[in-house]
Amino acid sequence: MAANQEDVKLLGAVASPFVFRVQLALKLKGVEYTFVAQDLKNKSEELLKFNPVHKKVPVLVHNEKPINESLVIVEYIDEAWKSYPILPSHPYQRAVARFWAKFIDDKVVNSSRRAAFTVDKEEREKNAKEAVEALQVLENELKGKFFGGEELGFVDIAASFIAYWIPLIQEVAGLQWFSSEQFPKLYNWSQEFLNHPIVKEDLPPRDPLFALLKARYESIHASN
Amino acid sequence: MAANQEDVKLLGAVASPFVFRVQLALKLKGVEYTFVAQDLKNKSEELLKFNPVHKKVPVLVHNEKPINESLVIVEYIDEAWKSYPILPSHPYQRAVARFWAKFIDDKVVNSSRRAAFTVDKEEREKNAKEAVEALQVLENELKGKFFGGEELGFVDIAASFIAYWIPLIQEVAGLQWFSSEQFPKLYNWSQEFLNHPIVKEDLPPRDPLFALLKARYESIHASN
Repeated sequence: MAANQEDVKLLGAVASPFVFRVQLALKLKGVEYTFVAQDLKNKSEELLKFNPVHKKVPVLVHNEKPINESLVIVEYIDEAWKSYPILPSHPYQRAVARFWAKFIDDKVVNSSRRAAFTVDKEEREKNAKEAVEALQVLENELKGKFFGGEELGFVDIAASFIAYWIPLIQEVAGLQWFSSEQFPKLYNWSQEFLNHPIVKEDLPPRDPLFALLKARYESIHASN
Repeated sequence: MAANQEDVKLLGAVASPFVFRVQLALKLKGVEYTFVAQDLKNKSEELLKFNPVHKKVPVLVHNEKPINESLVIVEYIDEAWKSYPILPSHPYQRAVARFWAKFIDDKVVNSSRRAAFTVDKEEREKNAKEAVEALQVLENELKGKFFGGEELGFVDIAASFIAYWIPLIQEVAGLQWFSSEQFPKLYNWSQEFLNHPIVKEDLPPRDPLFALLKARYESIHASN
């Protein structure tokens, strides 16, 4: 794919862990892009045009062609730009990476969000328990510095949520399901991840993100 | 990959639409394999060994290496055997195919199952409505004979559930959310799909599948 005359636009919102996955993939590849911040309470014509099905961010628009769903976008980026391999090259290792990325979405992200942002106490505890069980599976799976081995790969990108968002939402909700004591390997991974120069550069700043999550938490709990 | 000395095993259950996806992909590729039927009420050592995380079928075991999750397996098959391209070759078209396959899993399969197999009437109706909305999106999307164009592709494989399982579970549940009148293009697609020689050959026989779904429906409704 030609390196010049590329038009790469990311419709995003700074607080979103799904948008961050795409930002990180683009940065690892060294792709220049324009970030177009979206107001999700007042959706733009552009967002509705480029993601008519889900009307959500992230949307990657490459030469006017939209791609939706964060992991689908990350795979697209890996195939469209060759510079830094995000997925392994061998079919078996690729399948393993896809399996774990899906596991993180299905078992960690949803349960963690519900553990923090659900009003019903029983529901919160049930979800926190599910998140713990899933994190334990990942703890057992983690072998090297990163899920991708010595370098950040597809599973690490999918797991951004664990390293940066979970500690914040735990603090917001006054609950803990991910700790260094219970998951030492995952915790070490999270520190390596957060200290990676490219990750560090692109993470949304902590204080405004915390304030936003706190406000979301309070609005949910106030309205019930 | 060498065509000989391959050991390909599929741990499956004949009634599963997810197992069928894998069977269809293997058949399209012309890959010889051994089908190892699993008793899901009494899980085998082999299943627990090869899918310790979810303990579910399908599991593809290729030269003693297991792969889990039906769509992950189908992508693996596409990468490991080159004979019949299941995903398109261009990165953008590949991303589009992955998007729709995920859409089918997230929006059609789950809601349809809950529409049929949930006891709570309100919950069933809500899910049937969600399924209808998702099918409408697919109806608008379908352009050619198959989602893959002139040949069966990734999205068609993912959509097997719509063509064969939905009509059966509608009959079992006495509800209808997919009809030829409401979705003429999707219905035509389903007929093309069911009449495709390779699909036809491998579909689980209708009567035992119907009996099994009926028994599941009755056991759920009897126990509540």
